[in-house]
Amino acid sequence: MKSDIEISRDAKLMPVTELADQLGLQTEHVEPYGHYKAKISLAAGKDLAHKPDGRMVLVTATTPTPFGEGKTVNTIGITMGLNKIGRNAISCIRQPSMGPVFGIKGGAAGGGYAQVVPMEDFNLHLTGDIHAITSAHNLGSAALDTRVFHEEREGYEAFEQRTGLKALRIDPARIVWRRVVDHNDRALRQITVGQKTCGASTNENGIPRPEGFDITVASELMAILALATSLQDMRARFGKVIMAYNHDGEPVTAEDLQVAGAMAAIMKEAIKPTLMQNLEGGACFVHAGPFANIAHGNSSIVADQLALKLADYVVTEAGFGSDMGLEKYCNIKVRAGGKSPDVVALVCSLRGLKSHSGDFQVVAGRKLDRGMIDPNLPALEKGISNLRFHINNVKKYGLPCVVAINRFPEDTLDELGWLLEKAKELGADGAAISEGFAHGGEGCMAVANEIERVCNAQKPYFQYLYNCEDTITTKLNDLVVKGYGGSKVVISEQAKAQIAELEAKGYDHLPVCMAKTQLSISHDPNLKGEPTGFEVPVREVRLSAGAGFVYALCGSVMTMPGLGSLPGYMQIDIDEDGNIINLS
Amino acid sequence: MKSDIEISRDAKLMPVTELADQLGLQTEHVEPYGHYKAKISLAAGKDLAHKPDGRMVLVTATTPTPFGEGKTVNTIGITMGLNKIGRNAISCIRQPSMGPVFGIKGGAAGGGYAQVVPMEDFNLHLTGDIHAITSAHNLGSAALDTRVFHEEREGYEAFEQRTGLKALRIDPARIVWRRVVDHNDRALRQITVGQKTCGASTNENGIPRPEGFDITVASELMAILALATSLQDMRARFGKVIMAYNHDGEPVTAEDLQVAGAMAAIMKEAIKPTLMQNLEGGACFVHAGPFANIAHGNSSIVADQLALKLADYVVTEAGFGSDMGLEKYCNIKVRAGGKSPDVVALVCSLRGLKSHSGDFQVVAGRKLDRGMIDPNLPALEKGISNLRFHINNVKKYGLPCVVAINRFPEDTLDELGWLLEKAKELGADGAAISEGFAHGGEGCMAVANEIERVCNAQKPYFQYLYNCEDTITTKLNDLVVKGYGGSKVVISEQAKAQIAELEAKGYDHLPVCMAKTQLSISHDPNLKGEPTGFEVPVREVRLSAGAGFVYALCGSVMTMPGLGSLPGYMQIDIDEDGNIINLS
Repeated sequence: MKSDIEISRDAKLMPVTELADQLGLQTEHVEPYGHYKAKISLAAGKDLAHKPDGRMVLVTATTPTPFGEGKTVNTIGITMGLNKIGRNAISCIRQPSMGPVFGIKGGAAGGGYAQVVPMEDFNLHLTGDIHAITSAHNLGSAALDTRVFHEEREGYEAFEQRTGLKALRIDPARIVWRRVVDHNDRALRQITVGQKTCGASTNENGIPRPEGFDITVASELMAILALATSLQDMRARFGKVIMAYNHDGEPVTAEDLQVAGAMAAIMKEAIKPTLMQNLEGGACFVHAGPFANIAHGNSSIVADQLALKLADYVVTEAGFGSDMGLEKYCNIKVRAGGKSPDVVALVCSLRGLKSHSGDFQVVAGRKLDRGMIDPNLPALEKGISNLRFHINNVKKYGLPCVVAINRFPEDTLDELGWLLEKAKELGADGAAISEGFAHGGEGCMAVANEIERVCNAQKPYFQYLYNCEDTITTKLNDLVVKGYGGSKVVISEQAKAQIAELEAKGYDHLPVCMAKTQLSISHDPNLKGEPTGFEVPVREVRLSAGAGFVYALCGSVMTMPGLGSLPGYMQIDIDEDGNIINLS
Repeated sequence: MKSDIEISRDAKLMPVTELADQLGLQTEHVEPYGHYKAKISLAAGKDLAHKPDGRMVLVTATTPTPFGEGKTVNTIGITMGLNKIGRNAISCIRQPSMGPVFGIKGGAAGGGYAQVVPMEDFNLHLTGDIHAITSAHNLGSAALDTRVFHEEREGYEAFEQRTGLKALRIDPARIVWRRVVDHNDRALRQITVGQKTCGASTNENGIPRPEGFDITVASELMAILALATSLQDMRARFGKVIMAYNHDGEPVTAEDLQVAGAMAAIMKEAIKPTLMQNLEGGACFVHAGPFANIAHGNSSIVADQLALKLADYVVTEAGFGSDMGLEKYCNIKVRAGGKSPDVVALVCSLRGLKSHSGDFQVVAGRKLDRGMIDPNLPALEKGISNLRFHINNVKKYGLPCVVAINRFPEDTLDELGWLLEKAKELGADGAAISEGFAHGGEGCMAVANEIERVCNAQKPYFQYLYNCEDTITTKLNDLVVKGYGGSKVVISEQAKAQIAELEAKGYDHLPVCMAKTQLSISHDPNLKGEPTGFEVPVREVRLSAGAGFVYALCGSVMTMPGLGSLPGYMQIDIDEDGNIINLS
């Protein structure tokens, strides 16, 4: 089989203007970026307001190995499968960070014959939204450090008299807005800024203080982009972003720094979703890509809204397993204005479930154990508990569940048949084998048919997992007990104090976002299958006031990845014809 | 008169596809970015190779005040004026950094009725080239720090055995590749990276070392983008970029780090110039924007090449006064493959020349002294020496010189008439009053006519100022004595050692790029008019091996600006209709 980039390059693409035309978008709302990408103006949605919404298919997965279960392949594949059976379907997916593209993971455009194309454009720059976030975020940082510098150097009173501004009296020790860069760059995790230039007599560079960079997709602005329902809503949310606290412990926001408007100006184009196509000419909106731990891990509400007006089915992907992305979709994105799902496609694989036997070590960058690839019913039987959890988890939200078994070349029909039966036995409303990677839309027709059958047969009775009006502690405990099947949440002294402060400041009625590992249903990556009885420790609680949620850290969450000693970029180059080679 | 952004927004724009069509570009070579910007494939130039080149008009200026003399207004205005008199003309200008846009200077799209539109697009993001540079540059930094980290932690031998790579043995104390960000952010000037995460037992973040960020336009990659003649040439130059030295003092390049290919992949689209339009529907290529002190301050060779095939006249702008941008255009850009100018338009103003009397203090952000605005012949007579220098300077390169007097509303006909006469007396081949700001193309017809008259009458006999085969010291001395009219160059002990090292490594036959103030012909901003007898101190000499020049620092050059206490971003916002307000 050809490589992903070869398949992508060999594809015969339709001009994006033609694709937009087919969708019924008006020319004035379509802003091409090159021949195969276009930003779609949010005004297009207003023109379509009278049309009914299509059905929302949420693609989630069992607890993934570090290689992923193939959610993007299935999101694209199911869309193509729905198209094949004569339905109008559009995918809505996240834009990947360039960090992993040059690190170890490679691109995120799906794979094989279920890809978004051109994959080079998808994986690099796209239409510049992540660059806009980097720029808007770091303008906030520059504004913050500048204000501290001028106020501290001059003295608050003199500063106020000269500038006519009110002194913000920012406590340099309580700056919470780290800078961002869209690379894997461990050297920037922990730094000191504002140091004196070597040889200078005075320090004109600010107040030296500890600082660090996160990868851009971890920026709160990314979470806001994904949750905002309009440009004006995004602007308002930027204003609420807390960047620091003053000497009285009061929050200092981007609005206080008078930088929220400029940040919104920088992101005026980024709020428009990008239209691309899959290998079979179907439409795909690519928009926003927040982390699925410290943020909610789902693509944007505005792209969904647009797609729902244009299609019978919108197929969207939620990051990691159903305990992560799906949970956050339901409890955070729906609350912010996202459409509740009509059906869930739960992606799993034989090898993935075998890993939940606990018999194997799976490490990114190393080859899989043959025991996961070859027939191994005992391992499958041991690991099936993980599927059971995720089927039940989908049901908790009142949603119909179709299991999509992502087939790999070595998979045997025996084991696939066993798993199909087992899925139904465990309560799935439908199940089918999915072969999008090898066969594109045709390989996903069975799943598409199951999705339609289940949608016609069952109405969802969507419900949230927890009540937003409850205390933060209650909500966290609900998440652990009702959400993960653990025994209880254990909140550290530090986190207790933080919760008390949040409640005192009126931030207690926000949804909670658990930042835990994606490699287990619990907080502990070593607990495979369907662990029970575990207590989830919450070490720290932080606020994303602009995005509108409180997030709880269960352990240390890596917001700035590093690069290995043989990173992906070493192979990437351009050939004589100017084509990119070895991007995967 | 309306504000710049109001004029820009009220303009009736032509779709960029129509503009490209009018220029004779084939659809396949035009990649629209929205409705009013398009990247033009370099392949377009190959299709036009049989066509003769148009004439190259280089726009320079007298020694500017911090407010600038109106070079961009005149570059756009002259292009519109040439169009008005029936000639086919295209502007080639630089893309501005977003730093100054949010700082104090505002945008750089020209002004009044001589603007490139839409000015919001021009000033923010454009087609993402600067973002691509930031990303490619910082990938290089991440690659560098990662390599140091892995080699140092593991030991060179163990590293080689495990990875199969040759250890680069980088000296952490001799890393010369600073990171970049496209903001004015003084807190990042001097920092420490690779510090241990608070609370961690070991340092997983690298080797702590001093580091700093420059503004992106100061990146060597920006200079390379402007000087490369093709994608392949850019790729090759990236490979030569020196990022550090090893423990033997040998250079470690981006090629050694195996990151140059990925950097080129990131900048594969950035090498394509962006086509925009002026307020009268004429074409403008916007591409690259290197600093005019540590780099050569001119827009790209590839944009010029394309424009020369499409137009009778290409009007391009060189940064700062003729001692800076024009000198570097002639000695660096022409040597790298740029076309030598056919004629020079030397922009000056009454107020600018009055400032060269030395009687006034001009400070950015403060109002001009009335003595410069109101009639003041004595000041004008004192300051005229600066014009004399620049006319003679243009002549040194064998180029015809047309003086364009940029008229301001308060300027009197008496003084303008006096200056017109004086310009001719001082040796200008032509002179005219330019009113592009107030009247667009019509206001620049007189200058356009003078340019054509002079071009028809005089053939340039272009010559370089210095011989590239000479030693670095000789070239620097030539620049000071023949170029600036100073008495000699004075090279510090440090710079002498650096020159010796460059010569030993074979980098002595490159052009030299003087990084000095733009506010005086000399190195001292206080020396107004036409100073003589001054000695130019060279403190330090550095190498841009990829861009292909050696640059000499006369003093401290600011490669990372700061923000004042009332920066421009405080006023910028979006209005109810989603338009950007208060961008200037």
